[in-house]
Amino acid sequence: MKKSIGPRTMAFPTPVWVVGTYDQEGKPNAMTAAWASICCSKPPAIGVSLRKATYSYGNIMARQAFTISVPSEAHVREADYLGMATGKEVNKFAATRLTAVASDLVDAPYVGEFPLIIECRVIHTLEIGLHTLFIGEILDVKADEHVLNDKGFPDIEKARPIIFGPEIRTYHGIGKFLGQAFTVGRDLM
Amino acid sequence: MKKSIGPRTMAFPTPVWVVGTYDQEGKPNAMTAAWASICCSKPPAIGVSLRKATYSYGNIMARQAFTISVPSEAHVREADYLGMATGKEVNKFAATRLTAVASDLVDAPYVGEFPLIIECRVIHTLEIGLHTLFIGEILDVKADEHVLNDKGFPDIEKARPIIFGPEIRTYHGIGKFLGQAFTVGRDLM
Repeated sequence: MKKSIGPRTMAFPTPVWVVGTYDQEGKPNAMTAAWASICCSKPPAIGVSLRKATYSYGNIMARQAFTISVPSEAHVREADYLGMATGKEVNKFAATRLTAVASDLVDAPYVGEFPLIIECRVIHTLEIGLHTLFIGEILDVKADEHVLNDKGFPDIEKARPIIFGPEIRTYHGIGKFLGQAFTVGRDLM
Repeated sequence: MKKSIGPRTMAFPTPVWVVGTYDQEGKPNAMTAAWASICCSKPPAIGVSLRKATYSYGNIMARQAFTISVPSEAHVREADYLGMATGKEVNKFAATRLTAVASDLVDAPYVGEFPLIIECRVIHTLEIGLHTLFIGEILDVKADEHVLNDKGFPDIEKARPIIFGPEIRTYHGIGKFLGQAFTVGRDLM
């Protein structure tokens, strides 16, 4: 018997991704967001939902570009800070001593210290309610060499992304390998 | 120095969620999707992107409702199967011996054996490209009692959701607790 817990934003897992933008003066900003996911394969696209009140919202509206930087669990403290402080008041890159690297593809910076980054130009903007969904076409993905597997793809066990638990407000790391996708369920076919 | 790996749908973590729908004859269907996330807090909403070719796409277009069932790692084999087989050819609930439970709020079924479920009515449909994004208002979240914490919220360590790694096609469990959100980064404020 399942228990109702009401119409809440409760789903597991959610990502911990850092949205990189420039403001009007060219100051780089980084904001942690969890309401985000890949949303199309062709064109490759990723969506992130932001409140209008955020500094990043205005930046993306003006520049029509953003990056997603995926922090490793080693940077959980910085990732948490980047979701609390606002770029209206501080330079969050300076406060965290993280490096704002200018993308050579889109008008936005990414976090140099994070192992996986995604460069996007906005192709759709959808007002949902408190949050606005920005959908960015993925122009490139870049990864630190030390997180690549022998086929040249980022390995989740090396990148060690952070997982967020809404409502309970917890961060977790990646756990044990459970199986290969499109394989472990094949005997049911 | 970061290495370019091209414009790929590569981001960690992505969820492994099962979309529940009814077809025209009322046959329940369940399809695993990874291009999905919460996308608004007010109204609480969740988005899932599906290809037009999927059986679930037609079902959602017709019924304007869906559920999200979050499998535990114990059901990784079933979750994998539900992403490979198609409801056009088989009854996937019958094949997996999972239980289709009729939602009493929306015109869609959910997976009774999965610990966390979300009931949604469609409020936006956005054509992006190969994928169409369905945004559902969350009307209720229901959870098995054994995954609730002492405050009555689902605990990610008890629900044990599955994490998918795109491109490398791996499933992983939830790992170690890294810290409390809105807390571990507070010393940087």
